Formats: sequence, structure tokens, C-alpha cells
Amino acid sequence: MKLNDLVCQTSEWLKGTGPNSEMVMSSRVRLARNLTEIPFAHRARRDKQLAVMSLVRPAIESTKILKTSFFVDLSELNSLDRQFLLERHLISHELAEGKGVRGVVIGEREMVSIMVNEEDHLRIQCIQSGLQLMDAWRLIDRIESELDAKLKFAFSRNWGYLTACPTNAGTGMRASVMLHLPSLVLTKQIGKVLQAITKLGLVARGLYGEGTEPSGNYFQISNQVTLGQSEEEIIDNIERVIKQIIGHEENARKALLGKGKRQLEDRVFRAYGILKNVRVIDSNETINLLSALRLGVDLGLTKDVSRRTLNELFIITQPAHLQKLHGKTLTPGQRDMKRAELIREKLSGK
Amino acid sequence: MKLNDLVCQTSEWLKGTGPNSEMVMSSRVRLARNLTEIPFAHRARRDKQLAVMSLVRPAIESTKILKTSFFVDLSELNSLDRQFLLERHLISHELAEGKGVRGVVIGEREMVSIMVNEEDHLRIQCIQSGLQLMDAWRLIDRIESELDAKLKFAFSRNWGYLTACPTNAGTGMRASVMLHLPSLVLTKQIGKVLQAITKLGLVARGLYGEGTEPSGNYFQISNQVTLGQSEEEIIDNIERVIKQIIGHEENARKALLGKGKRQLEDRVFRAYGILKNVRVIDSNETINLLSALRLGVDLGLTKDVSRRTLNELFIITQPAHLQKLHGKTLTPGQRDMKRAELIREKLSGK
Repeated sequence: MKLNDLVCQTSEWLKGTGPNSEMVMSSRVRLARNLTEIPFAHRARRDKQLAVMSLVRPAIESTKILKTSFFVDLSELNSLDRQFLLERHLISHELAEGKGVRGVVIGEREMVSIMVNEEDHLRIQCIQSGLQLMDAWRLIDRIESELDAKLKFAFSRNWGYLTACPTNAGTGMRASVMLHLPSLVLTKQIGKVLQAITKLGLVARGLYGEGTEPSGNYFQISNQVTLGQSEEEIIDNIERVIKQIIGHEENARKALLGKGKRQLEDRVFRAYGILKNVRVIDSNETINLLSALRLGVDLGLTKDVSRRTLNELFIITQPAHLQKLHGKTLTPGQRDMKRAELIREKLSGK
Repeated sequence: MKLNDLVCQTSEWLKGTGPNSEMVMSSRVRLARNLTEIPFAHRARRDKQLAVMSLVRPAIESTKILKTSFFVDLSELNSLDRQFLLERHLISHELAEGKGVRGVVIGEREMVSIMVNEEDHLRIQCIQSGLQLMDAWRLIDRIESELDAKLKFAFSRNWGYLTACPTNAGTGMRASVMLHLPSLVLTKQIGKVLQAITKLGLVARGLYGEGTEPSGNYFQISNQVTLGQSEEEIIDNIERVIKQIIGHEENARKALLGKGKRQLEDRVFRAYGILKNVRVIDSNETINLLSALRLGVDLGLTKDVSRRTLNELFIITQPAHLQKLHGKTLTPGQRDMKRAELIREKLSGK
């Protein structure tokens, strides 16, 4: 398997199933680890970066779960391919735009990926469909245990696992959930909800994490604090809060289905009508229309489209994906046309 | 035949055929006539208004073309029915909102109608589909000759036919053409075109003539001057100018089909997609979307919809028509829903 094979593959986490998948797109856990006796990645010289790589790769490839993985050397990729991996949530901005020896190991169906020489020596991530943080954590925990048997991780009795940025120290864990909250946005309750979660030690971001604004009514909620709690406690806390948000979104949906049902249907079916007929469309409008249609699908207003198709469109209509699908670079104007073609094709059920 | 039978009938002029029907919706000629020795309608007392009616009705009903006509007494109509006739272009605002003895005689397939005691004692109108001003004029001329044999029309050797408003004196004729000029609007040439026609003695108005603003890219072009030229000269002049405007619109359409074809298709198919899926829609958006779709139909971008269906929707989605179709008064909110239902039904080809 290699990078280009991903183009025609649907990531496991996009299948649109799992608990609460009518609101939770995906659950993600990532763990930061660093090798002891080697400087942190941003302070390591090239020979040390190479040392990390040569220690880490065989260790990863000998774990049970990542036996069938493949490695992508970021320093060999052009910007289109880097963007492509970023759009798929397989790598971070930092890894994409970084310099030096760095890469990513990608597991089967993209459920697990491990970035090497990102901010930390290792960033192990697992994404699953729906609300499955605990499952994602257990999978990551198994991988980490296997790696721990082969590698020496920087660990302090006082601080826990040591990380390049102190805000990640302790567990080194960040757990996040991608929520689709269109009804809370429509009923203008979202501001209050986001304010409340901040007080509970959580943070809301956009589709691509830190530094991205929410769009298409998608909110990525994650833990702020990585220290002083066990991984299970952190996950329990997030899951509890997420379930409350889900409850609020459910109530907002019920309210919209009551008095405002026709208006809601109008919003959903206009979006559907446009998407099925569009000839030119940019990414931003695409995300917003897919959000409206997804709400309709989740509420059972239309059964013509699957959540999986919408999730897929959500990813493959992005600029780098479009260009990879067409095997060449496209201008923004060309992309807007190709994007429209792709949406029409997918929604016509071909 | 009576007023309510019109609800399910499509007016002859909406059939979407005739010369240049890809840009000309309809051609209309109206003639103002007054009876001699009776004051103009707005100065006539009730007994005189009744006198006009009792002279005029039998005369009209004995003409060949209006033998199968029916009479509607405006003073007996509620505001919904008056609005209904107005939306169908069978009566004017003035007749709808007037007081006193007044009515309209409606001929077969609504091709000819004669208002009695509007601004003038008689307003004879003929509407045809496409660019057929001369045909419309000939038909009206025949009716007028028949009436002239039975009624005494106020006529001056110096001024021609006398009318309540001096701007109508002479021929008493107003010829108008309803043009659909979306490409001149899109390419921002419409301002220049409208300026030019003013210099040629013509005037551009909205869908419902005097005092209405253009909407949905429809422009009603008519003669300003009724005096000093024969009817045929006036019509020749308008037709010549209309053909020039048609040429400009044709060129603009060709230009749009060139470089901007995908953008044009996008506009057309988005409109189509929305109209086929909409659940709530107001009149104004309806007209604009129908205009975009009509352009697509006229350019052969889609063959799923007939021009006749679009013309029909154009009329029956108006407030009074919706309420007549449903047999009861509807709030604006209810109308927006019923309008959406009607559009979906008509476009699904049922």
C-alpha cells in the first residue's frame, strides 16, 4: 500500500456508524511520546532526527496492529501530497509544514497513524467513527504498551510523560470528538454551550483542530488538561460533557421538527437540490450545504443519501483530494467545477 | 363559463409559442374608446355609468369574436377575485381598485378582454403569445370595427379618438411586448438598452405595466406616443426596436454560452434544483428562479421543462391564484408553502 492508494479508499472513521453517529462524526485520541536521551524534535539535529526514525520505525512496524501499515516520508512529498494527508486528518499542519527528517506510519483503513518527529518524537493517533473515545483509547494504549517494551520513553515520576510543549505533559493525551451541531447553531444556542464547556476544562475548535475556525456546524471538542488525571478520567469527563451537548442538540432538533418543520425541510431540500444540480461550487459552500443535508439525513427527512456518502464528500471535495482524484494540479476555478461534478456523481448514487 | 372556471385554464398567451418566444413572452395591444355624449368614466354619475354598461355589453356580445365571452361585474367581486383577474392580466389596477359600475368581458382562452368603465368607457385588449403585435392589432381592429357600427365613439377630426387622459388620444392605442432579457441583465447591458429605447419614443415597465418595477428580468416595452402616427406605424416602430433588443439579448446569450458557459449552467441548474426541492418560497424568489430556469430552457441546457410550464408557473404562483386554486384565503406563510408544493408538483411533470 502506498499514498496514492488512499485516494480511492474511504477511511474507517468516515463510515458514519458507531454510537451517536447522527451527531458525532468521529472520536480521536492521540498520545505524545518522546524517546529518552534524544533532544526533542525541534531541538534535535539531523543525525538525532535520523536516530529517532531508525529506532521508531522498526518498533512501530513490529506491533500487531501496525504490521500491515505503510510509511510515508514527508521530506519526499510535494505540497499537494502533504495537503492531501492533512485533509485526511492523517497528519498535522506542523508535520506538513515542518522541515527535516519526518514521516507518518499509516495503519489499515487509516484507523491508526503515527507521526514521527512532529512536535514530539511520536504522535500516536487513533480515529474511530461515532462516539468511541474509550475504544480509541484502548487501541492506542495497546500500541503504546507494545512500543514501550521496545523503546525507552521519557518519563518523570513527578510529571509523567515528558513532551516538547509542557501543556501536553503527564498523560500526553489529547482526546477529541468531532460534533455536528447544526440545530444548536440554527437556534443560536451554540455560544452558550461553547462557553459552558470551556469552564469544564474542554476546548472547542474547527475541523482541523488548533487555529481553525468552526465551519459547516462542525465543532471539535477536546480536553485542555493532560496532567493530574488518568487517561480514563479525562475520557470519562469528555464523554460526559459530549453526552450533555448531544442532549442539547437533540432537544434543539426536536424543537426545529415541531413548529419550524417546514422551514427545516426547506433548508435541507434546497441544499439537496443545489448539491444535485450544481456546476460550480467552492469548499466553503460545499461544507455548509453538506451540513444542511446531513441534518436532513440524520432526522430521516430524506433516505436517498447515506451518512457515509456525506462524510466521504466532506473529505474528498477538499482541494488536494480533488487534485489527487484527477491526477493533476487544478486552478481554484477548475477545482470548483470538478468539485461540482464529483458531488453530482456521488449524489446520483453512481 | 365564469370566473372560477379560469382557475384551471391556461391563457392562450401563456402557451410559449409564436415568433421569438424564447425571449418574447407575449404581445399585447389595447385600444381606448369612449362613447360620445356621455361624460368620461371618472366624471360620469352612476346613471351614466349604467348607461355605458347597457349600451356597451350587448354591442360587445354581438361581435363575432366575443360571442362566447362572459361578463364579470367588478362591483360584485371580493378583493381576492379582483386580484386574481389582475394577476392574469385581464384587468388593470385602475379597474380592480375603482368604484362604481364597472366590469370586464372575457373572450375565449382570454385572448381578448374588454374593460368597461375603466379610465375610458372601453379598453379593448388582445394578448398573444410571442412577438405578434400586428396579429393582435388586426384582431382588435376587427372587433373595434364591429363595435363602431353599433356604438358612437367620441372622435375629433383634429385629435382622433378622444380619451379621458390626453396622453392616450389619437389612436388610443398602446402596444406592448413582454420581453425576458436575463442575459442583458447578467452582462449589465440592460441600462444602456433601456436608455436607448426611451429616445425612440418607447417606455419600459415591470410585469404589471405602469408603476411596477421590473422583476425576474421581465420588461414590458410599449409605445409612449399615441398621436400623429397610424396604428400600423406605431406597431412597426415597436417591432423594429424589439427586434434590435432581441438581437442584443441573443448576442449576450451567445457570449454567456462561450467563456461563461459553466457559470451560466450553474445558475440555471441551481435554480432548477431549488425549484424542484423547495418547501417554502415567496413570489419574488419564485420569479427570479423561474427566470433563470427559463433561460436554461431557452438555451436548450435542459429539455425536462417546457416553456409553457414555466409561463404557467409564472402566473399561478401569484398570491390570488394560489388562493383560488386552494379555494380559500391563505396567510402569506401558508402561501409560501403552497407555492412551493405547486412548483414541485408542476416540475415533477405530474
